[in-house]
Amino acid sequence: VNTTGENEVTQATPDVLDNMRIDGDRLLARIAAMAEIGKTDNGGCNRQALTDEDRQGRDLFIEWARAAGCKIRIDPIGNIFARYPGHDASAAPIVSGSHLDTQPTGGKFDGVYGVLAALEVVSRLSDQRIHLRHAIDVVVWTNEEGSRFSPGCIGSSVATGAMDLDEAYAITDGSGLTLGQELERIGYKGDGQVALGPVTAAFEAHIEQGPILESKQIQIGVVEGVIGLIWYDLILHGVEAHAGPTPMEDRTDPWQAALPILEKAYALAAEYAPHGRCTIGAINASPGSRNTVPGRLTISVDLRHTDQVILNEIDRRFRQQVTDICATKKITYGLSVVWDMPVTAFDQKCISAVTQAVSALGYDYMRMFSGAGHDSVYLARQVPTSMIFVPCENGVSHNEAENARAEDLIAGANVLLQSCINCSAANWAEHR
Amino acid sequence: VNTTGENEVTQATPDVLDNMRIDGDRLLARIAAMAEIGKTDNGGCNRQALTDEDRQGRDLFIEWARAAGCKIRIDPIGNIFARYPGHDASAAPIVSGSHLDTQPTGGKFDGVYGVLAALEVVSRLSDQRIHLRHAIDVVVWTNEEGSRFSPGCIGSSVATGAMDLDEAYAITDGSGLTLGQELERIGYKGDGQVALGPVTAAFEAHIEQGPILESKQIQIGVVEGVIGLIWYDLILHGVEAHAGPTPMEDRTDPWQAALPILEKAYALAAEYAPHGRCTIGAINASPGSRNTVPGRLTISVDLRHTDQVILNEIDRRFRQQVTDICATKKITYGLSVVWDMPVTAFDQKCISAVTQAVSALGYDYMRMFSGAGHDSVYLARQVPTSMIFVPCENGVSHNEAENARAEDLIAGANVLLQSCINCSAANWAEHR
Repeated sequence: VNTTGENEVTQATPDVLDNMRIDGDRLLARIAAMAEIGKTDNGGCNRQALTDEDRQGRDLFIEWARAAGCKIRIDPIGNIFARYPGHDASAAPIVSGSHLDTQPTGGKFDGVYGVLAALEVVSRLSDQRIHLRHAIDVVVWTNEEGSRFSPGCIGSSVATGAMDLDEAYAITDGSGLTLGQELERIGYKGDGQVALGPVTAAFEAHIEQGPILESKQIQIGVVEGVIGLIWYDLILHGVEAHAGPTPMEDRTDPWQAALPILEKAYALAAEYAPHGRCTIGAINASPGSRNTVPGRLTISVDLRHTDQVILNEIDRRFRQQVTDICATKKITYGLSVVWDMPVTAFDQKCISAVTQAVSALGYDYMRMFSGAGHDSVYLARQVPTSMIFVPCENGVSHNEAENARAEDLIAGANVLLQSCINCSAANWAEHR
Repeated sequence: VNTTGENEVTQATPDVLDNMRIDGDRLLARIAAMAEIGKTDNGGCNRQALTDEDRQGRDLFIEWARAAGCKIRIDPIGNIFARYPGHDASAAPIVSGSHLDTQPTGGKFDGVYGVLAALEVVSRLSDQRIHLRHAIDVVVWTNEEGSRFSPGCIGSSVATGAMDLDEAYAITDGSGLTLGQELERIGYKGDGQVALGPVTAAFEAHIEQGPILESKQIQIGVVEGVIGLIWYDLILHGVEAHAGPTPMEDRTDPWQAALPILEKAYALAAEYAPHGRCTIGAINASPGSRNTVPGRLTISVDLRHTDQVILNEIDRRFRQQVTDICATKKITYGLSVVWDMPVTAFDQKCISAVTQAVSALGYDYMRMFSGAGHDSVYLARQVPTSMIFVPCENGVSHNEAENARAEDLIAGANVLLQSCINCSAANWAEHR
């Protein structure tokens, strides 16, 4: 049955499919070629969203995808859907992708690997003139990083209805250019439907961006979900006073509350180990003079956990600690939530499809949570989703020094291929 | 005996001298007139060192001093010595002064009060055509504040040999102008000797710049010395890591050392209460991103005590605590001393002269240490010195809202007058 009009559609036997492996050399060559676009002196990449470099990266992706027999659709927020046809036109596609934009001093792998691993999956199927029952949409999501246009994950947010299209268009970069203008300028403001539409399942391959797989010497992370987080701004009010003439007992020093609050925040993460996290990344003392008691301390507090029930408990207890300590120390305070991202639990069927793939391939693996956010967080709200992690060197990411081993990148792409095969072979209901 | 050739020199009887009081209205009127020069919208003063406003203030002072029968000498660093003659030309002068320069958003009293109280002392003597045995040098010290040209107390430092004249000349302000250029520009680069020369004693009246006198409802502080301080820069090195994917046990988080170090620094101040002080005025987390474990914390630590033996002990223990905690927490650190100002002990004879004056005048008083630095710190290294404090509103200084009660300002000037009388009546050896 030829349903596409373009490719001869072959239904391979299970045995052929089980033994299919991606072309590692091609995958690595494409990662290297993509890294040439916006490459930095220190071996990283600066290919920020909707810049000329982003356009070049997108153009190159489309060239490769067309060569693999994909049809290209650009949606209104600039997400690229490269569809490799399936032999059952009534089956909703399997989606697999990530992003091509980078941090200003980013690396070669974050996002790029997920896009090119998915492209390699369809390229390999195309090499062998094999089509699965389901089409595979290789997707490039717009502006995942959020470094040029904030927040991140704008493409996946708009496609899944979490952000309004016009709101997204109006977001400006540091120089006042809007996202809408820049999409148009680089020629990637598409048309047609904004919403993602029916999807069977979504898989995203990614470097771990953390140290766990490497330190445990495990090649594949089967990702069960994404850690939830709450970002707080804690403001502690003191009274400015000269460090010399003001006796200690006459001071209102916000540090008297800050020190026990921070200690207890760290203790919460420890109490709910190993999945609790506490990070104090930013602090400001005002006026910031070394011989003046601060009139104000502003402290960022980032608390995370992989279990929503526990994260709620951490939130409740942290707030109570702030209240109690500030009352005891007679310090007035403000505590505001800057961002609250609930725990994302990935789909059990998708997790099984990945686990089955990695088991059959014989790689070492572990189940784990993602500590960083991804486009898959938004996809998971609408469609069955999971992710596949591979180790990265020293856990370093968002950094020009970002690195990953060839064998791991190839293994991850093979897991992605086999996950898609497993998913397509199973008889899941489609999801909207 | 007329030793001056300008004034009729009258030796008053002890009874006349005991009953002398300064002219409070004139003192207050002069403080108000000086406050017009560089006055700010919020009721304060911006009369920074060696600006046109500083020149106007100096000119006005000299006009008043000449009217009181003083001879003016400007030294090479711009200190103004207005000499009211004594009847014994062989007796080294009593020095009394302070500074006319202010902070950018300073008040009407810091420094100004000490200059104009001393001027009032000689003005009152002049009104009555009375001369003490000793000449009185009313001194305006150059650039006490240190806000335009850093450090502070440059005039008194140079005059007492603590700073080299050429080094002082070369100091630049924020726009690159040198102190030497600016002294010349405003016409206050004098000539003659740099060194202070023989002095019998030095007294400086000042607002307290702290809350102690006001809160205890005491009118006069007899100042026994100036608190010693050590300013440290503590740098704690961590390893930058993403707040999400990095497990707590894989982190090198400088906060793990910072929290106990700061707690123990505050505990040191408490252990050596009431004269111990600990202030954490400035802190920087690098890179300062809320979802990144800081790679570096830079913290200013200001430790003070009025007893040098205890300050040495605080220094020793603080260093040991930093070493021990960083070793336990496996955090590398750097600890540098930015400034080490030893405790200044004022002269017992001067303290007695002031105590005797305030007792005779019947004001409430207490002995106390100065928590802030003053020109008297440098004078005290060479000549018998003490200070007289009066309360200021809410202990506020270095602020446009700086305020003091008329009755306290008048009382302090009377104490200064009687202290000079007591000092001159006593038969102290002169000091070089």
